[in-house]
Amino acid sequence: MSIITIERKLLEKNDAVARENRDLLGRHGVFALNLVSSPGAGKTSLLERTLEHLRGTIPVAVIEGDVQTDLDAQRVARYGVPAVQIITRGGCHLDAPLVRDALASIPLAGIRLLIIENVGNLVCPSNYDLGEAMKVVVASTTEGDDKPLKYPAMFRNASVLIINKIDLVPYLNSKPETLKANALQINPSLLTFETSCTTGAGIAEWCDWLRRQASPPSA
Amino acid sequence: MSIITIERKLLEKNDAVARENRDLLGRHGVFALNLVSSPGAGKTSLLERTLEHLRGTIPVAVIEGDVQTDLDAQRVARYGVPAVQIITRGGCHLDAPLVRDALASIPLAGIRLLIIENVGNLVCPSNYDLGEAMKVVVASTTEGDDKPLKYPAMFRNASVLIINKIDLVPYLNSKPETLKANALQINPSLLTFETSCTTGAGIAEWCDWLRRQASPPSA
Repeated sequence: MSIITIERKLLEKNDAVARENRDLLGRHGVFALNLVSSPGAGKTSLLERTLEHLRGTIPVAVIEGDVQTDLDAQRVARYGVPAVQIITRGGCHLDAPLVRDALASIPLAGIRLLIIENVGNLVCPSNYDLGEAMKVVVASTTEGDDKPLKYPAMFRNASVLIINKIDLVPYLNSKPETLKANALQINPSLLTFETSCTTGAGIAEWCDWLRRQASPPSA
Repeated sequence: MSIITIERKLLEKNDAVARENRDLLGRHGVFALNLVSSPGAGKTSLLERTLEHLRGTIPVAVIEGDVQTDLDAQRVARYGVPAVQIITRGGCHLDAPLVRDALASIPLAGIRLLIIENVGNLVCPSNYDLGEAMKVVVASTTEGDDKPLKYPAMFRNASVLIINKIDLVPYLNSKPETLKANALQINPSLLTFETSCTTGAGIAEWCDWLRRQASPPSA
């Protein structure tokens, strides 16, 4: 019982800071995404493709969350966007205070879109509000089509599902239609995209949607 | 500081129960593996292939750990082995007390090999000893070859690495040799296997090794 109480208190403290982050982002008109997935679903590759596609259209910033190493921030920095690396040193998810600290290093006034790449983990990040506008869950076709049923919290708490690595579908037993149907069974309001970072399929549709979300209402 | 203390106490309690589990398994001569990976790396498919290959040789039992659903235990039960499903209801890893409860339902006297399939999570299960003889980490070729560097604790705490889905290598940018080199950089004593549950490649080598580990010393 005491463990549950502690966990609840931790979440309450997190949620309070998440509200501050959301207010701060709102004041600057920044649309913020919390990108979540299993390790290796392709979040960083998708981020690279997205930065490449959006270059010269809307100003983007990135917060990278990793258990260890700044490999991802190095990959992202090549696209010339403000990028902050959070290393959790074993921690299994980002939380709102970590993101608050990272936000202090980002020139928010000039930014329209903030992408926060969470630690690769399909369980723990689902409970932690970072102050984002929405969670985007990336699921790779290679992970099998049963993942939404087996890890429902993440799919329930996300607003967008990106089915990635669709170029590998011909070589797999799992089907993206089944993955999508399973995800919609958990969360009927999920918006879905299908992408391949190898062929570039679906990247334009995803980026067009992103650009619409991140444009000021008057545009 | 208080959070760290609580976490340490939790781990100490877990480790005490893990020792009880290890003693119990030792008394019955059961060789126990803790199978860990990202969601969708192919743990359950590998388990199915393993049960198929070992059928009629050594008696095996399975403990399935999942956040939600008993889909995996259903898959495993078709192979006619004792299988117990643990549903963590949102919990991100198995712990020793959960495994102790599951062990109570398994006829250990007749078993030589116990495979515990952990929750799909490359971070949290690394700290929790379940009483196993060793951790086996499964990494899929599709996850990219940088995972050992980004999630080092799991590769450091494992004794065996199985590089799975090698049939997909021709369609990927990542290389199993790089994955293996990165893993050995983290943990030079890792024993490695390469498998495909689609083609069956490497399954015989893996099962031969398993059978040798699980055979009584006199055999």
